[in-house]
Amino acid sequence: MKTLKDRIQKDGRCFPGGILKVDNFINHQMDPLLMMQMAEELVRRFEGTTISKILTVEASGIAPAIMVGYLLNVPVVFAKKSQPSTMENMLVSEVFSFTKNRTYTICVSRDFLQPEDKVLFIDDFLANGHAGKGVIDLVNQAGAELVGMGFLIEKAFQRGGELLREAGMHVESLAIIESLDNCEIKLR
Amino acid sequence: MKTLKDRIQKDGRCFPGGILKVDNFINHQMDPLLMMQMAEELVRRFEGTTISKILTVEASGIAPAIMVGYLLNVPVVFAKKSQPSTMENMLVSEVFSFTKNRTYTICVSRDFLQPEDKVLFIDDFLANGHAGKGVIDLVNQAGAELVGMGFLIEKAFQRGGELLREAGMHVESLAIIESLDNCEIKLR
Repeated sequence: MKTLKDRIQKDGRCFPGGILKVDNFINHQMDPLLMMQMAEELVRRFEGTTISKILTVEASGIAPAIMVGYLLNVPVVFAKKSQPSTMENMLVSEVFSFTKNRTYTICVSRDFLQPEDKVLFIDDFLANGHAGKGVIDLVNQAGAELVGMGFLIEKAFQRGGELLREAGMHVESLAIIESLDNCEIKLR
Repeated sequence: MKTLKDRIQKDGRCFPGGILKVDNFINHQMDPLLMMQMAEELVRRFEGTTISKILTVEASGIAPAIMVGYLLNVPVVFAKKSQPSTMENMLVSEVFSFTKNRTYTICVSRDFLQPEDKVLFIDDFLANGHAGKGVIDLVNQAGAELVGMGFLIEKAFQRGGELLREAGMHVESLAIIESLDNCEIKLR
């Protein structure tokens, strides 16, 4: 998606260790018009796919997910990273965070992930795919079907996208980063 | 806002201790069409107010905030509840959570909250107003101006709205809960 790629080149900042900061338009300060354009493009990429529910993970997945849900008119569920004491029928999975070098849990209420659901997962970043694996686990536990995964930005060099596609998943990413070597952003 | 009030009566669930669960349409599973309608109503309530930035707190404030930002075409910033190691120029404030009986920090990068900003704060719940006080502190630290606070649901019996209004703040809430006594939802 050209608008996003241009914006990454213009406003994205690269740090040692393969870190791309897009916190001025995606995951701390957000550009809502760009967010809606990205949601429109994600909807186009999954045209023809039956979707009954959008699933994301708090916090930075929520903005693109609610926009996609709005365009498709389907409910949006966000998995939580802590287990609320008041949550019933909880489905839980573990995710290893490469960036933070620790494991965290994601959880979602079974009430909102039903066996008949056709789930589209939406998130801001696809890197090594650990969060994606946790989400696949949650959807499997619910007995629902994961029909696709849509991301704003994919870091191809961290191989999560490769693994998910090899497993037969329909994965769409609006901008794919080939490399951040020498703190230079190379887009596919 | 009638649509929201009707939905609270229909789908909200009340638990002992003044707890209202709206996790099937607002803060776990979200209804994106209702979310957009609520954002439209918040925009109406602040018509005539100059707004250059929307501020919210992760996670459940993000969905209404991004919708309001989309309608007003202004950037949306979400304060984070943990301090990311990569955040620069951080503004930090402490918030006491009555529900969880503990203090947590909220932080925002000074890069995205500038002295010239006219800030509208958006969140899902207004209860005792502790999060609101933390936000006022962050905006003051930035030297910006807080021009209003808009909430989806206010719990009048927890008095945060009263305190903020007495302090001269323009506060708007789309549904106001008078009481949850005996697990009965009484709306104003």
